[in-house]
Amino acid sequence: MQNKNQQIYGARAVMEAIESGRTIDKIWIDRKKNNALIKEVIYIAQQHHIPIQFVPEEKFSPYASKNHQGVLAKLSLIEYHSLENIVFDTFNKGQIPLVLILDGITDVRNFGAIARSAISAGVHAIVVEEKGSAEINEDAIKTSAGALWHIPVCREKSLLNTVRNLKNHGLKVIAATEKGTNSIFKCDLTLPVAVVMGSEEKGISPSILKVSDEMCFIPMVGAIASLNVSVATGVILFECLRQRTEK
Amino acid sequence: MQNKNQQIYGARAVMEAIESGRTIDKIWIDRKKNNALIKEVIYIAQQHHIPIQFVPEEKFSPYASKNHQGVLAKLSLIEYHSLENIVFDTFNKGQIPLVLILDGITDVRNFGAIARSAISAGVHAIVVEEKGSAEINEDAIKTSAGALWHIPVCREKSLLNTVRNLKNHGLKVIAATEKGTNSIFKCDLTLPVAVVMGSEEKGISPSILKVSDEMCFIPMVGAIASLNVSVATGVILFECLRQRTEK
Repeated sequence: MQNKNQQIYGARAVMEAIESGRTIDKIWIDRKKNNALIKEVIYIAQQHHIPIQFVPEEKFSPYASKNHQGVLAKLSLIEYHSLENIVFDTFNKGQIPLVLILDGITDVRNFGAIARSAISAGVHAIVVEEKGSAEINEDAIKTSAGALWHIPVCREKSLLNTVRNLKNHGLKVIAATEKGTNSIFKCDLTLPVAVVMGSEEKGISPSILKVSDEMCFIPMVGAIASLNVSVATGVILFECLRQRTEK
Repeated sequence: MQNKNQQIYGARAVMEAIESGRTIDKIWIDRKKNNALIKEVIYIAQQHHIPIQFVPEEKFSPYASKNHQGVLAKLSLIEYHSLENIVFDTFNKGQIPLVLILDGITDVRNFGAIARSAISAGVHAIVVEEKGSAEINEDAIKTSAGALWHIPVCREKSLLNTVRNLKNHGLKVIAATEKGTNSIFKCDLTLPVAVVMGSEEKGISPSILKVSDEMCFIPMVGAIASLNVSVATGVILFECLRQRTEK
């Protein structure tokens, strides 16, 4: 059954929602349950790349009077897209792909501001990992000024594999890191590119840095130079737009 | 007297604080009081360009047991600087001034993020108007990642007069507005410049737009294109840095 918080409970209800094409952000499963029905939910969820979290039964206390069967799912506010299809379509239309990969950016307001910049700078898709990304909730949508209703978001199981696939599809993968060797202003962004941004705390995962084609930094002055991640993303995306339109 | 909230109360205490050089954000005066002492406070506050707000006596209820005399002042977390001195010093050092004027930006988190970008892009001073600007509180300083301890902030009575003075000092005043006629990427930012940013809701005041030398926009794509003000400021400031360092 579905309630006002966009949550549905019960193993069958959740499986039906998945199979009828509803987009689901996350499934919570009672960690003590391990019956055939639960296994079926897990199987279907994995088939559809939906993150699963095994939780204590207290998670289900708001539904104590209901037949929740130890399964709860959060419906997504947005639809997720296939990155492969978008890249393919973009090339087909004769456009130069610009993909934005967000690695571990969990702050909802930053995520919203980034989505807003992305749509305004001509980004074709935002890519996040299934686990450890910002929740796309009402706050994210509000901060995005509605951009999240329009820009395609792709949720991938492994960003590392995504980066490898994008390289195979002919995109140059540019990791934005203060440890980079090239100024972003000297980097050729007129090619098909995927820009990777990491969180302010942890930066980009070492495994992703390793397979990236280029590590670029934003030149800064001053002893305490640093940027908010949504500002840094904006600076890089509009440098792309500048290079693509002004040359 | 001073309390833990960085507030001082009492007409004499407030006047002493002002005259001893303490920086004060704002003074609240009981709107029902109108004696010689109050007039003296108002006179000194005006001499020092400190904003005054006339408030109902309820404002003073936390100090009901104290001899507050209807006068309360909030000490500033930062020191304010003289814009004229900064511009003069910058020219004297052979540097090209880059001044950032914030017209009506009241969101504390945006203000903090802007200060952080400004220091990293080499801005010499941030200018705000006495009234209607973001409060420089703990949240602003936190969001600025400490940048507000380092970048000079100037508080001016009238931004319109400030813009006129900067023009007289040889700065080109660039108003960032989506109604602009030139792309920011085609605008020469290697000259001494003052960039004016307005709030997302109201934009830049018409009187300031009128006296600006150039109205510039950030090129964008898409039907719902718009940017968060701290991102837009970052894009423009780093375009300045790019032009000044890459050419």
